[in-house]
Amino acid sequence: MDERIRKHADVLVDWSARVEAGDNVVLSVGPDAHELAVAVAEKLGERGANLLATYSSGEVTRAYLQAHDDEFDENPSHERALMEETDVYLSIRGGRNTSATADVPGKTRTAHRQARDEIREARYDTRWVSTVHPNRSLAQQANMAYEEYQEFAYDAILRDWESLADEMANMKELLDEGSEVRLVSEGTDLTMSIEGRTAVNSAASVAYDSHNLPSGEVFTAPAATEGEVTFDVPMTLRGDAVRNVQLEFEDGEVVDYDADQGADVIGDILDADEGARRLGELGIGMNRGIDRYTDNILFDEKMGDTVHLALGRAYDACLPEGETGNDSAVHVDMITDVSEESRLEIDGEVVQRDGRFRWNWDDE
Amino acid sequence: MDERIRKHADVLVDWSARVEAGDNVVLSVGPDAHELAVAVAEKLGERGANLLATYSSGEVTRAYLQAHDDEFDENPSHERALMEETDVYLSIRGGRNTSATADVPGKTRTAHRQARDEIREARYDTRWVSTVHPNRSLAQQANMAYEEYQEFAYDAILRDWESLADEMANMKELLDEGSEVRLVSEGTDLTMSIEGRTAVNSAASVAYDSHNLPSGEVFTAPAATEGEVTFDVPMTLRGDAVRNVQLEFEDGEVVDYDADQGADVIGDILDADEGARRLGELGIGMNRGIDRYTDNILFDEKMGDTVHLALGRAYDACLPEGETGNDSAVHVDMITDVSEESRLEIDGEVVQRDGRFRWNWDDE
Repeated sequence: MDERIRKHADVLVDWSARVEAGDNVVLSVGPDAHELAVAVAEKLGERGANLLATYSSGEVTRAYLQAHDDEFDENPSHERALMEETDVYLSIRGGRNTSATADVPGKTRTAHRQARDEIREARYDTRWVSTVHPNRSLAQQANMAYEEYQEFAYDAILRDWESLADEMANMKELLDEGSEVRLVSEGTDLTMSIEGRTAVNSAASVAYDSHNLPSGEVFTAPAATEGEVTFDVPMTLRGDAVRNVQLEFEDGEVVDYDADQGADVIGDILDADEGARRLGELGIGMNRGIDRYTDNILFDEKMGDTVHLALGRAYDACLPEGETGNDSAVHVDMITDVSEESRLEIDGEVVQRDGRFRWNWDDE
Repeated sequence: MDERIRKHADVLVDWSARVEAGDNVVLSVGPDAHELAVAVAEKLGERGANLLATYSSGEVTRAYLQAHDDEFDENPSHERALMEETDVYLSIRGGRNTSATADVPGKTRTAHRQARDEIREARYDTRWVSTVHPNRSLAQQANMAYEEYQEFAYDAILRDWESLADEMANMKELLDEGSEVRLVSEGTDLTMSIEGRTAVNSAASVAYDSHNLPSGEVFTAPAATEGEVTFDVPMTLRGDAVRNVQLEFEDGEVVDYDADQGADVIGDILDADEGARRLGELGIGMNRGIDRYTDNILFDEKMGDTVHLALGRAYDACLPEGETGNDSAVHVDMITDVSEESRLEIDGEVVQRDGRFRWNWDDE
């Protein structure tokens, strides 16, 4: 076995999910994530955890959903009972075709999703972590050769997370103490209030309220957004390419939008509900193991030299106890490159210039 | 998709498991059984059943067991809760190496198995059915070309089950009414009591208390076994080849054993627990779609011209209401060829001679 797969399993089990003896673990395995599943199983055996593996296949899901009449039973009790007794839910994604469910109608997906709200909540109550096994299908999505993609993915995943968490703590502290953020870049001059909000140091570990591996971002929930922003990182949203999306905010809401490509998709998203016109997230990418865009949000939004904003739902972790932030059925991240002629200010002080953080300026 | 895969799914879901709308189904998928899983998922969607797929991989199990210290938690509650809420458990086996767990120590397997007795009981309380997806690894185990093996397997699986069930009813009647069975063949002269026991007409459907697809055997739970038996059908047990196993019984228990090959494995099995030294099953193979040994117990024991016996656990279906039969953590089937110079007697009357049944003698 490729030694990197074992290291990936080590990070997932020990750093990310903090698995201990006696933990009831569900390991959700994609059809082409077998090798990582073997490495994770070995690690779970070492830790004395209790392993149940589930099979997560887009093709199986597609066949089931296509044949169903869309009248789904609410929260089937066998899956709910499983999830309620689960301490740790590890999802290792990796199919053979990232478009495996492309022809399942939206209303079928929505009906299936809505019928499973309690199962989903129970899963979010576990120490859940989602990761991907870098395989050929994901390499293809990223326009990379297989071995090239493996190097890319493991560079992002096999980091010194403890040291990255320490660095990200600087940014969290600045955001927690600050009241207003200003982002300036080409086509962007945006101010947001972060007064009273708590930033998440997303260090790829449940110990940091962080549930993705890789991670490497610090994010918070902004409000009262004013100004304009351009998202120049290319991406695919709902199956459509979008390029250079521009948004204009007044009183926290989008009042105008445009895009070089995919403006229709942006319009649809903004029309989803009231909350879809406001920001739910400001995130600062700090994982320098990620050195290029691959049109996979799990990686792209964590990349160093980028800042991302999400239209829609805010995460509870960023809000004062008991307070609910921006509410919406959508949460759509878009990314802007801040590597050149850019600055991020907190309460008038520059904390990031041309992608470099204040605490690193002396080294350069 | 090969039309035979869809037919296999039809037989499994409708004839074997009698799946209905609202059933909570667990589909246990082997790593190389994906195509059948897709066909079964489609069928389950049509029926309006609730699908949860689990991943059953010998390599994952091996990695977990090898790394574990053998102090397994008793009946982990997440898996037990799942099984207790499950109506139908469908196991579609098919890995890439039938020897995937060959180097897991016997004591580890036994400890793991013993720690899961309640989960196993809960699974046996469902409408469970076990089948295989004919793949290259199984073809190799059977010493067959892949396409040859597919034909072999589908001949066994895609039968007219209703008509086979009718023929098997004859044998069930003889066994139900009889008190003592005697099996005589080369190296075999064994008597067993079947007084008060109920035979199962194993017609590959839960409606017949039959849980394997293919099936095609009639079996009961013998007691008070006396004499000697030779299992001349070659097979692999726990990863090791065994050849010509000989057992000697007194007062229902094995008092001596030997084998041309694999005697150690037999010794390990007999030492598993007290019940492992007694018989749990006498079965008569009646599926003439199976025309050769393939070292796969699911097929071999159903073959016409064979009789098999199992050390260990007896099936409750064979016992009077409320009575428990031979109890054990193991159930290990071994097979003897009765096609030549053999006879099966019930209460002194020959019912099968050289593989042919009494009700067919007139035809020959």
